[in-house]
Amino acid sequence: MPENTFDHSLPYKARGRRDFLTTMAALAAPVLITGSLGAAPVRAAGRGDRAAEANRAADTNGADMTIQQVIDALLADIPGAPFPNTVDTIKAGDPHQPVKGIVTTMFATQAVIAKTIALGANFIIAHEPTYYNHLDETAWLGNDPVFKAKERILKEHGICVWRFHDGIHAHKPDSVRMGVLQALGWDKYYDANDPAMLTLPGMPLKEVISHLKERLGIEHLKYIGDEGQVCSKIVVSPGAAGGKGQIGQIERYQPDLFICGELNEWETSEYVRDARYIGGKIALVVLGHSVSEEPGLEWLVPVLNQKIPGVKVTHVVTGDAFSWA
Amino acid sequence: MPENTFDHSLPYKARGRRDFLTTMAALAAPVLITGSLGAAPVRAAGRGDRAAEANRAADTNGADMTIQQVIDALLADIPGAPFPNTVDTIKAGDPHQPVKGIVTTMFATQAVIAKTIALGANFIIAHEPTYYNHLDETAWLGNDPVFKAKERILKEHGICVWRFHDGIHAHKPDSVRMGVLQALGWDKYYDANDPAMLTLPGMPLKEVISHLKERLGIEHLKYIGDEGQVCSKIVVSPGAAGGKGQIGQIERYQPDLFICGELNEWETSEYVRDARYIGGKIALVVLGHSVSEEPGLEWLVPVLNQKIPGVKVTHVVTGDAFSWA
Repeated sequence: MPENTFDHSLPYKARGRRDFLTTMAALAAPVLITGSLGAAPVRAAGRGDRAAEANRAADTNGADMTIQQVIDALLADIPGAPFPNTVDTIKAGDPHQPVKGIVTTMFATQAVIAKTIALGANFIIAHEPTYYNHLDETAWLGNDPVFKAKERILKEHGICVWRFHDGIHAHKPDSVRMGVLQALGWDKYYDANDPAMLTLPGMPLKEVISHLKERLGIEHLKYIGDEGQVCSKIVVSPGAAGGKGQIGQIERYQPDLFICGELNEWETSEYVRDARYIGGKIALVVLGHSVSEEPGLEWLVPVLNQKIPGVKVTHVVTGDAFSWA
Repeated sequence: MPENTFDHSLPYKARGRRDFLTTMAALAAPVLITGSLGAAPVRAAGRGDRAAEANRAADTNGADMTIQQVIDALLADIPGAPFPNTVDTIKAGDPHQPVKGIVTTMFATQAVIAKTIALGANFIIAHEPTYYNHLDETAWLGNDPVFKAKERILKEHGICVWRFHDGIHAHKPDSVRMGVLQALGWDKYYDANDPAMLTLPGMPLKEVISHLKERLGIEHLKYIGDEGQVCSKIVVSPGAAGGKGQIGQIERYQPDLFICGELNEWETSEYVRDARYIGGKIALVVLGHSVSEEPGLEWLVPVLNQKIPGVKVTHVVTGDAFSWA
């Protein structure tokens, strides 16, 4: 029933599923023009001097900025950043070169790199690792041809890759979460006191699944639950928070539905299976990791447009790696 | 074409998908009657004195044995067992009680426990954790109602749960692997010098996928690759070996197809996506963790029948937790 309680005006509705590539400048909504990374759509977050200083970059021509200055401008909005221990490091290239164009994405895949080259951009902001492990360690890869080919093409084209993971999640509010909620039209249900928990007008799980697939451009997903079960209390946990984190949220909020990006199959899914067996009404949806966080990176585009005027910023959808049979 | 190169006489072919429950005694093939856990179907592995001693248990009535003696009889075949550091511990119940009946399974889910009770058995051998984390730590669960309900029902019915994970994999050959290969009719391609790597008559990925689904009772799976791509060199890696292990096998064997149970979506699948983009012909199939190892636990049944005569041994299929939309 409550299909019409959602705002269908958002960009995700119309886009293609696999290979969407768009310049999002046109989508920079008034809610984003403070330049504060992701704060405005919900409420104005306090920003300190670092943020104010970084935002003054907006008065200059972004084309005069280095990639490092772009990074600093983003980090200026993150409480506690730069972090002493973080995976948000330069994965390839020289951050002290002038920024020529920016791509935001989930993974700096070979396909994303090819599009970056075609766009004439030299800076990829990727949410996830470049070299197939969380810490982007490369010693273990040795002369692996897949690793070497990526390293080589990035070097040949002078492309800098920076990971923006810990920082974007540490923003208040978590900008990945807000990007996802906005894409779903669910940001109106957001409560800063309980960021993960939404209380929506109840609707059957089947409708929730259709909505998730349509709005997030997902072809297939996995779930546990009855399609007819009414879901009102919904926890949204993009990415892969790990079993203890995911189960901890289920314990805390007792939701009708827990939505995550990825899980370990000996953790959260087994917990939910047991919970349902003893009468619990919880359902579980697993979106897929990349597609579960993609809107958070897309959401950076208008932020960057405001901070770095004169530099083209493009979100390139990484997309799900899988086919389903 | 090579569909008929596989032996279709195996038990997995005919069984139902989700809720299969069978006593496998009738399936104890001659190849298994040495009682050595999983060694015989491929080649006779050397067994030491511990194995010989434990196998003498077969001369006694299994109904006089304690659960701990059953465990010891299984461990007698495992090189180096019992291990000082292992997850193969008692998760619930008293192992010093007489064994009344044995259930083998992937997870001691609430559903599996209910079937165990219905069977009058008091010993569950589960390959994976009972309490939703690899180490089966429970302090973090506190009074979680799902945890407490499982703890309670196991206690009320005097059921002992033991994990058999590190041990069954450490057997020579890995008995999970051999159970899976036998279920697939691929054990004839097994090479003890390269246990993970099989060289089969080439067949299109689409046919491999159909074969995997049929033989392993899988309704849906995820893959990366072209359906028409011919697969001959295939690495089979049940379970979730982790990105470095999985990618290491791909580097070593350069297979046409890598088959795993589960992966992290920022690791192996991204490696394969990049490998294919630069021209690599590798394909990837993700079976699902539980269904990828289930035959290994089913394979224990005839082994136990030989070691523990007079005690009913039943494989209860845990099955995939997910529905797919």
